[in-house]
Amino acid sequence: MDDKIEIGHGSGGLMTQKLIHEVFMKHFDNEWLRAEGDSAIVESTHKKIAFTTDSYVINPLFFPGGDLGKLAVCGTVNDLAVTGARPGYLTAGFIIEEGFSFESLEAIVKSMKAEADNAGVCIVAGDTKVVEKGKADQIFINTSGVGFVDNLHSSLAGGGLIKDGDVVFLNGTVGDHEAAIINAREGFFESAGLVSDCASFNGMIRRLLDQTDTVRFMRDITRGGLAGILHEVAQMTSLGFEIEENKIPVGESVQAFCEALGYEPLHMACEGKCIVIAHESESGRVEAIMKNHEYGKNAARIGKVTQKHPGEVVLETIAGGRRLLEPPREAKVPRIC
Amino acid sequence: MDDKIEIGHGSGGLMTQKLIHEVFMKHFDNEWLRAEGDSAIVESTHKKIAFTTDSYVINPLFFPGGDLGKLAVCGTVNDLAVTGARPGYLTAGFIIEEGFSFESLEAIVKSMKAEADNAGVCIVAGDTKVVEKGKADQIFINTSGVGFVDNLHSSLAGGGLIKDGDVVFLNGTVGDHEAAIINAREGFFESAGLVSDCASFNGMIRRLLDQTDTVRFMRDITRGGLAGILHEVAQMTSLGFEIEENKIPVGESVQAFCEALGYEPLHMACEGKCIVIAHESESGRVEAIMKNHEYGKNAARIGKVTQKHPGEVVLETIAGGRRLLEPPREAKVPRIC
Repeated sequence: MDDKIEIGHGSGGLMTQKLIHEVFMKHFDNEWLRAEGDSAIVESTHKKIAFTTDSYVINPLFFPGGDLGKLAVCGTVNDLAVTGARPGYLTAGFIIEEGFSFESLEAIVKSMKAEADNAGVCIVAGDTKVVEKGKADQIFINTSGVGFVDNLHSSLAGGGLIKDGDVVFLNGTVGDHEAAIINAREGFFESAGLVSDCASFNGMIRRLLDQTDTVRFMRDITRGGLAGILHEVAQMTSLGFEIEENKIPVGESVQAFCEALGYEPLHMACEGKCIVIAHESESGRVEAIMKNHEYGKNAARIGKVTQKHPGEVVLETIAGGRRLLEPPREAKVPRIC
Repeated sequence: MDDKIEIGHGSGGLMTQKLIHEVFMKHFDNEWLRAEGDSAIVESTHKKIAFTTDSYVINPLFFPGGDLGKLAVCGTVNDLAVTGARPGYLTAGFIIEEGFSFESLEAIVKSMKAEADNAGVCIVAGDTKVVEKGKADQIFINTSGVGFVDNLHSSLAGGGLIKDGDVVFLNGTVGDHEAAIINAREGFFESAGLVSDCASFNGMIRRLLDQTDTVRFMRDITRGGLAGILHEVAQMTSLGFEIEENKIPVGESVQAFCEALGYEPLHMACEGKCIVIAHESESGRVEAIMKNHEYGKNAARIGKVTQKHPGEVVLETIAGGRRLLEPPREAKVPRIC
């Protein structure tokens, strides 16, 4: 096998065939890819399907807790899961810079396969483009996903079910992913213990939906952090939030990192965290289900939905005051996902 | 509105919201995007769905006959159509270089919307990433697509229906897209009349499937050209092809361009062409349906499937001889799609 990606690997000719067979098919192998059609034909188990897409341009490609490949699977699986869907099938589109190493490509592909297996999804179609050296930064991956939605859960996605008094949960510490990425990129602290939380949490969401009746809304916390997501939901619903700062889990390393460098953990991206909004009557049950799951061990009830200040997120601070939590205004750091 | 894309437009914060509303939602506007969920929830009309993905990295972004946006819709629509699916929904993932102009972005987005309307599909979910100046070349777009497949046509994709003696059709001239792109990029000939054939031909495919009974296989001709596609199908099926060179339509400008610069039209990418393989008994009907459609006016019966030389494509040349048509070995030109 050649050791570097060349322009010819994106040509559609014999080199492309070789790349497909010796890297992608070798690891992703399944009946849909073996069919080598222009599209994969999959069975739709439900009347309603969820459809989503995300491109991943993270730098660095490999970081504590994950890599581009793992992230590209988790991110899209989570986007499906939080709309109430059972994630089913993914596609993978690779844009590769000429000269990128086969070894790194294969490591990324293996990681995608391992995470797809964890999440219970299949990568059924793909595409590879190669651009000239200097025209992309190593490798970018798009994954799109299809999932299947029970009728019962088909109204979860839009936020229309959220009501005044509902309880807001978070499945663990915030800021881990972005802190780990910044630290890996800049090399600030060598043994800071900063590890991305990158994970497919669809299993936890499934338990919540199967074992409770009043989950109103879920959303994963990525770019914009917890504050960004709360603001988006407040805008969507014309309701507000009252959040208790001291209930929001933040890891010690992330706290120390943010204090040292002036970051706000509530504005920092996660890759394995979501908010869950549920009716108060079931709040004990929701919390227990989350805490019993691997990806919800540090789950917490962080606040409530309120109609008192529509569109606003009020933070009850650790110091005992109240202040408006600002949405993130600008990117301090590009390419965290 | 700002006139250049900044890193903040990819941050997930207020600038991202502004970009989404003032560019993407403004043009793509539909019920699914307005829901602003992490995934779009769409109705599945069939038990079998086709799912595909392609990234588009073409250079230049605007060319005679189309642009990146039009191409990103056509290409994915055609990939769905040739597997027998009715194209339904697309997602759009944008990777944008810092400093890219809003004016160009808006032109591309408008073009995507116009082509989606032509093809009868909706763009229901999207994603935007911004990378630092110099880390991508202007803009790359991934589109993924979902279509719905009638049971009757669910075996078309794999090539398993193709039989010895079946007839091979082509819906028009080959090489137009790649010749137009190379000419636009290199500025070889100013008024050569080279225009990309970039088009969504799903309407033509639908007529073929609705009005005939023996279509065995279809595939769009992109990277690798007609020769590449015939070789792929020959490998897939362990059958061969006998193709008559003088039946393959090649436009005068493309012929002249290829002769001047030493290109082989049969190895050059199209973006609005496909091969259709059908039983001989219906060949007159298939040809007539294609010729009566806007995107099949120059359709031709170009040869036959044979079991005589499995895996090989034999060309009966214009000069009266027979030779093996070689698959394209390497990319002469990167980023034609």
